[in-house]
Amino acid sequence: MQVIRSQILLFLCQLSCSSSIGTRYTPDWASLDSRPLPEWYDEVKFGIFVHWGVFSVPAFGSEWFWWNWKGAQNPNYVQFMTQNYPPEFSYADFAPNFHAQFFDPDEFADIFAASGAKYVVLTSKHHEGFTNWGSPNSWNWNSVDNGPHRDLVADLGTAIRKRDLHYGLYSTLYEWFNPLYMSDKQSGFKTQQFVENKVMPELYNLVNRYKPDLIWSDGDWEAPDTYWNSTGFLAWLYNDSPVKDVVVTNDRWGVGCSCKHGGYYNCADKFTPEQLPNHKWEKCQSVDVRSWGYRRNMKLYDLMDLPTIIKDLVYVVALGGNYLLNVGPTAEGMIAPVFEERLRGIGAWLQVNGDAIYATKPWRVQTENATVPVWYTSKHSTVYAIFTSNPMQNTFMLLAPQTSYSTVVTLLGNPEPLKWAPLQTSGLIVLLPDLPFSPAKAWTLKLERVA
Amino acid sequence: MQVIRSQILLFLCQLSCSSSIGTRYTPDWASLDSRPLPEWYDEVKFGIFVHWGVFSVPAFGSEWFWWNWKGAQNPNYVQFMTQNYPPEFSYADFAPNFHAQFFDPDEFADIFAASGAKYVVLTSKHHEGFTNWGSPNSWNWNSVDNGPHRDLVADLGTAIRKRDLHYGLYSTLYEWFNPLYMSDKQSGFKTQQFVENKVMPELYNLVNRYKPDLIWSDGDWEAPDTYWNSTGFLAWLYNDSPVKDVVVTNDRWGVGCSCKHGGYYNCADKFTPEQLPNHKWEKCQSVDVRSWGYRRNMKLYDLMDLPTIIKDLVYVVALGGNYLLNVGPTAEGMIAPVFEERLRGIGAWLQVNGDAIYATKPWRVQTENATVPVWYTSKHSTVYAIFTSNPMQNTFMLLAPQTSYSTVVTLLGNPEPLKWAPLQTSGLIVLLPDLPFSPAKAWTLKLERVA
Amino acid sequence: MQVIRSQILLFLCQLSCSSSIGTRYTPDWASLDSRPLPEWYDEVKFGIFVHWGVFSVPAFGSEWFWWNWKGAQNPNYVQFMTQNYPPEFSYADFAPNFHAQFFDPDEFADIFAASGAKYVVLTSKHHEGFTNWGSPNSWNWNSVDNGPHRDLVADLGTAIRKRDLHYGLYSTLYEWFNPLYMSDKQSGFKTQQFVENKVMPELYNLVNRYKPDLIWSDGDWEAPDTYWNSTGFLAWLYNDSPVKDVVVTNDRWGVGCSCKHGGYYNCADKFTPEQLPNHKWEKCQSVDVRSWGYRRNMKLYDLMDLPTIIKDLVYVVALGGNYLLNVGPTAEGMIAPVFEERLRGIGAWLQVNGDAIYATKPWRVQTENATVPVWYTSKHSTVYAIFTSNPMQNTFMLLAPQTSYSTVVTLLGNPEPLKWAPLQTSGLIVLLPDLPFSPAKAWTLKLERVA
Amino acid sequence: MQVIRSQILLFLCQLSCSSSIGTRYTPDWASLDSRPLPEWYDEVKFGIFVHWGVFSVPAFGSEWFWWNWKGAQNPNYVQFMTQNYPPEFSYADFAPNFHAQFFDPDEFADIFAASGAKYVVLTSKHHEGFTNWGSPNSWNWNSVDNGPHRDLVADLGTAIRKRDLHYGLYSTLYEWFNPLYMSDKQSGFKTQQFVENKVMPELYNLVNRYKPDLIWSDGDWEAPDTYWNSTGFLAWLYNDSPVKDVVVTNDRWGVGCSCKHGGYYNCADKFTPEQLPNHKWEKCQSVDVRSWGYRRNMKLYDLMDLPTIIKDLVYVVALGGNYLLNVGPTAEGMIAPVFEERLRGIGAWLQVNGDAIYATKPWRVQTENATVPVWYTSKHSTVYAIFTSNPMQNTFMLLAPQTSYSTVVTLLGNPEPLKWAPLQTSGLIVLLPDLPFSPAKAWTLKLERVA
Repeated sequence: MQVIRSQILLFLCQLSCSSSIGTRYTPDWASLDSRPLPEWYDEVKFGIFVHWGVFSVPAFGSEWFWWNWKGAQNPNYVQFMTQNYPPEFSYADFAPNFHAQFFDPDEFADIFAASGAKYVVLTSKHHEGFTNWGSPNSWNWNSVDNGPHRDLVADLGTAIRKRDLHYGLYSTLYEWFNPLYMSDKQSGFKTQQFVENKVMPELYNLVNRYKPDLIWSDGDWEAPDTYWNSTGFLAWLYNDSPVKDVVVTNDRWGVGCSCKHGGYYNCADKFTPEQLPNHKWEKCQSVDVRSWGYRRNMKLYDLMDLPTIIKDLVYVVALGGNYLLNVGPTAEGMIAPVFEERLRGIGAWLQVNGDAIYATKPWRVQTENATVPVWYTSKHSTVYAIFTSNPMQNTFMLLAPQTSYSTVVTLLGNPEPLKWAPLQTSGLIVLLPDLPFSPAKAWTLKLERVA
Repeated sequence: MQVIRSQILLFLCQLSCSSSIGTRYTPDWASLDSRPLPEWYDEVKFGIFVHWGVFSVPAFGSEWFWWNWKGAQNPNYVQFMTQNYPPEFSYADFAPNFHAQFFDPDEFADIFAASGAKYVVLTSKHHEGFTNWGSPNSWNWNSVDNGPHRDLVADLGTAIRKRDLHYGLYSTLYEWFNPLYMSDKQSGFKTQQFVENKVMPELYNLVNRYKPDLIWSDGDWEAPDTYWNSTGFLAWLYNDSPVKDVVVTNDRWGVGCSCKHGGYYNCADKFTPEQLPNHKWEKCQSVDVRSWGYRRNMKLYDLMDLPTIIKDLVYVVALGGNYLLNVGPTAEGMIAPVFEERLRGIGAWLQVNGDAIYATKPWRVQTENATVPVWYTSKHSTVYAIFTSNPMQNTFMLLAPQTSYSTVVTLLGNPEPLKWAPLQTSGLIVLLPDLPFSPAKAWTLKLERVA
Repeated sequence: MQVIRSQILLFLCQLSCSSSIGTRYTPDWASLDSRPLPEWYDEVKFGIFVHWGVFSVPAFGSEWFWWNWKGAQNPNYVQFMTQNYPPEFSYADFAPNFHAQFFDPDEFADIFAASGAKYVVLTSKHHEGFTNWGSPNSWNWNSVDNGPHRDLVADLGTAIRKRDLHYGLYSTLYEWFNPLYMSDKQSGFKTQQFVENKVMPELYNLVNRYKPDLIWSDGDWEAPDTYWNSTGFLAWLYNDSPVKDVVVTNDRWGVGCSCKHGGYYNCADKFTPEQLPNHKWEKCQSVDVRSWGYRRNMKLYDLMDLPTIIKDLVYVVALGGNYLLNVGPTAEGMIAPVFEERLRGIGAWLQVNGDAIYATKPWRVQTENATVPVWYTSKHSTVYAIFTSNPMQNTFMLLAPQTSYSTVVTLLGNPEPLKWAPLQTSGLIVLLPDLPFSPAKAWTLKLERVA
Repeated sequence: MQVIRSQILLFLCQLSCSSSIGTRYTPDWASLDSRPLPEWYDEVKFGIFVHWGVFSVPAFGSEWFWWNWKGAQNPNYVQFMTQNYPPEFSYADFAPNFHAQFFDPDEFADIFAASGAKYVVLTSKHHEGFTNWGSPNSWNWNSVDNGPHRDLVADLGTAIRKRDLHYGLYSTLYEWFNPLYMSDKQSGFKTQQFVENKVMPELYNLVNRYKPDLIWSDGDWEAPDTYWNSTGFLAWLYNDSPVKDVVVTNDRWGVGCSCKHGGYYNCADKFTPEQLPNHKWEKCQSVDVRSWGYRRNMKLYDLMDLPTIIKDLVYVVALGGNYLLNVGPTAEGMIAPVFEERLRGIGAWLQVNGDAIYATKPWRVQTENATVPVWYTSKHSTVYAIFTSNPMQNTFMLLAPQTSYSTVVTLLGNPEPLKWAPLQTSGLIVLLPDLPFSPAKAWTLKLERVA
């Protein structure tokens, strides 16, 4: 009897339920943190981050334009405004020029898919508070009433999903200049007008309307999670929301949460651990190292080139992270060709080397430096050694892998097994073929049946 | 003892209290309707209504521009937009052009004071939902974040009060396209998101911040007062608000309230009773008979001329009403000279004839037509007979007044007593002097000591 | 023989020639000044001046906006720009906002016709150099390529002529900032690039295309007529142009010409002689006394009221002048209602008193002051005595007219002959009826058969 | 005596004169075509073409935007305008948005210098007629009165020359919609108003003001050179202009001139001869193969990649041409990073391979295909064999060169002489080293002392 019953449960579970049967999370970190991360996330490894909003109109400095101008009163921003706009021009006056007239979601999605990314995260709302969908709680300050006059969250989502990519939504908790927030803040966060009238209605609205696979929370750092009602929201998200089984979240849910609570960890922006962390993490990084939003005056030397990006991606994956690479579309709705070129370059590299990235696990050793530095990833008994500089010689030494007689070594992209010889205690020396031309300057040795 | 105590109470009351000591109103119409109208309102007789908002930018058709364009889809409006704006232009895109760059509140107030008006009512928020002050509940859709970048409600108020005029605020309950309102409406007004997040916070904010002498409510007609929480608000307004003793309100507090509940009655716009009503009322009327908001393409024949306005004012006052005459400022912040001329013309007429208007009461007879039509007003035993056409003869017959030996008849503006003779049962015949030039074409006979 | 030859000449003349057979003007003042003024001009007496251009967009200060801002650097203008526009904003940037979207030429013409004016003069090009027609010599700086995107000169002209009014065109010679002009000026007017490439082609183009009845030249004062080629143009205009028989011009054709050469004399703007001049003249005057172009921030006290205008008109006609009254349309293409009201008021007065104005001649006495001041005009043995203040008594004395037995005196607008009695040597005393209500505050006594 | 005199002449000549003493060109092709091309031009080989103008504002389709929209009425352009602009929007209305607010001429010049280009040609005026300097003949349709409000021709020129690059100016003869041109055209080019008032004054002005090293004429094809006065201008340019000794021109001087008269030949845009031409020529080519002007919606696949550009450059130089590669700056004044990357990539390649390009002459054989295709250039007895595909083998065969015992073969960028062996009648086989990583995918074998 017992056996049969549990088999039935297991069967039902496979049909419809999430990781744990009957588990309901309670709105506290102990419970919420115990939820297993949905599996898809660790497998995809590489995603695209898209920062788009009214800040794409001035497209100067960074997506923190408004804050830098009116909050920090940074002289560069103040001067930019003084020199180019009438004195009374306000940030809201930029919105009508967020035209997005060239925006073709399928073109965006084609480029993202061609990059080899498996998920895309769009800023549904950045700290400026402008929502990229027609939020009823952000009347006349959203992409349907203003500027593009379309539902950017929906339109991009549809195109992303047509290509079987996962779709995530960035959403900020705080909004720099929202008067309700400023009033709550002034009260020492004893009142929660802002959370009740804006933050929560919009998060619920986002989830119910767009069923995102990922919620990328941000802007949490000025107030505790109790102010934000984060645990309440997450309990609903995990228990009752339409995405309860698949949704992934990050760790920005209140001051002190980062790197400690939530789903995977972002820790700081561009966080790069030096050793293998013991919790799933993600590095977010922008091609334009000075800004997440598009800058009209960006220059080439502010942009990561392809080899640098690949090196970064490889490092992150070797250390168990996901890599979320950001591009900022223009106010007109284009991905700048220089970004497109980077993304297609990554895709071309992954076309050959993707086996060493997708669905891998960190290996027992993450890196070593014999011939040239290598980064390891693994899939069962297969180990991948990725190197991002041309050794300029035809032998290649690896110290960590334990070979066996059945070990097979190949260069990804090259079907023929390579000659190799074991080294004394562990490790091997491989006879490299001519390395194929690689604009990404990175190649992978695949070692099957090693330990 | 008793006597002394009540005298003390009376004394205290004269110092500080409102009409009734210790009365607290309960949030129901029976109680609220029992509140006596603060006296100042009936005495002032004549006020200026000011419709100003984002609608002043298209300044086409009327202040209902948005509704006519997008709600009713009136072809005139649709065509105007098609011919003059890009296809994706939205109503919100007008806001940046609400510059008000020439707005000098003291100039407005000077013109209003010169008109002889004793109160001014500004649209703090019209059905478009745009607030003319920095409402925290209308972020990026208000005159501080957008357009003028100033607090119009405060700035005009200060100037108005410097001239000892009363200051009232128009505020709409409904907002055509507010998504929270639309959602409540769709629920059959079972939800009150809109009222809780927008209407009530803004009404309380307005009262606490600007201490208006008058709340001119509007936009109530689609939902019952129970949806709007009107009685709750009014109870607070009358009991506990900073203006509890002086504030006057009108009757637009929910479907069915108009002409029935609240303070004075507006009934319909431009409502003109045919007989003396038994409740204090107000006629609101616009100089531009086709619009309350400024129209860039208004033409002279759409505007009331001075004699027509004076005739209207006289009629209203004779029937116990107040007259609230509207002008719409331009988006640049000017009162059009043609409106200024009307207002100064009224003031010039009131300079001479104001005795027959301010602080008067309706007489036992409101009008009669012997020589030419006259309208009566009164102050104790003094009766004023106002006539708005030149009799073109030098005798003038009045049938209703009962004269006595001590009766004195003068023409306002002319110090010398006129010759007159009683008629048989009642009435008199007066020997008119040459009527002075009156651009308003209206003159007043003052009859002292008549019955 | 002789007879036949002159008959042939007469016949030829009927086919092709102007008023005087065989006269051709030579390009010198002696000849040009000898041309008789076409008769229509002295008969019409009253015209409307229309200042419209890119200056109608800033609509601030006056139509000399550009000069005041960039030439004189008047702080008011500089500050206006600094406060309301980006630093790099140039005058040319105003042009796109010269929309004229409401411009209906028939409405303009209806208002002008209703004013009783018999001619209309439009600024085809003011000192800003922007042409209100598609001048091939002013590419991308004209009303067809820019702003209104229509031929304002043509459109207004057609409507004006449909109503049998005469159509005149104002055209400036100099253009403040035209680089060709500035270069000629720097050469001490030794070069004539500007005249050859801009002024002359445009004047010829205007005349050939629009066949104006009047050329109102301006902007002549910095250079001699020899620089402007004025006499050459006028000789062509009088000899060979399509309007040679009807065209009238003024006197602004080069420094020193004003009040001395050309057609009728304008002398200075708003010139008002104190005695009867011996040459036909015209007073141009603007309703807005501070500007000829529309000002968005004009105030009522800057505008002439109707009685002042009528007084001015009467004075000018009594002294043999024509009166050209200016209104500035808005950038949107409207005549402001306050101007419309003035114009219709003049028309209403002329409806009654036009006999005393149109087609009259100055009388031997222009003015006298017995009862109240009067101004005289005449038509053969009929003399008109116009008075612009109410004498407030019923007798009226006139000293100059010599009556006879058959003299008849009437008040214009009143068919019944008035009683009168001769005074001793000359003059008469008239028994006035009640003066009808006159918003213009001016009435006319018509004296038939006096000397 | 004789000797001394000729030495003096030679001395004077070195100081001040052009190639031939005392030669004056007559305004006819026989004479003008006989002028030797100033030497610098053939030596520099590689230049940058810069298309910038009002077309950079719509930045849609191509720099022929205006023509495609209003001339050809191409539905793509018509629809773009209909969907994004008000109906009455005109091309002139784009000018205010040509802000160039980020334009730093030194940054442009740095990028151009880094590309290895030795000359830069800017569109001083394209067919739209808008001049990128303050042309007195293009008032209010130039970059000083409008848009950037600066002298782009001067500002870029100064920066270019600071880096010792040659500075050329593109200038169109015809202007699509210039009314003077259209009128001349309608007359069958019998009148020359346009040439006299616009084309010639502007060409002379350009030369005198900016002293360009190169005049890149265009827009000649609708009319004969006699209409354009081309020979007159060129005679002045060669005889008397301030740049008479250094200036180079192209061949677009009237219908039929192209590939036949003038300085060097452009023939058609992107003209690519199949065999060595017998007259100096230039290929102009745009990185964006669909447009010369910036397009806001350009996509990566419309852009030439670096290997394609290098292949094109090598082909052109091998066939004796110059290569003028175009980039279109944005309306904001930036070189898009994707263009910058191409340009810097070319520069990096020329850093290594420039010896095979600059100051070379075509060799007796231009190309051959033994191991992989090679293109030859030469300098005296040194021959360069450039190959643009990786042979993927370590021997390399060249058939045409005649070696000698002293022949030395090196790979540019690699100091060590390579092993080689002669082939039977002619040619040699070279032992290649590992080819260095080359993003441009092109390498050069340098053969010294071959025939």
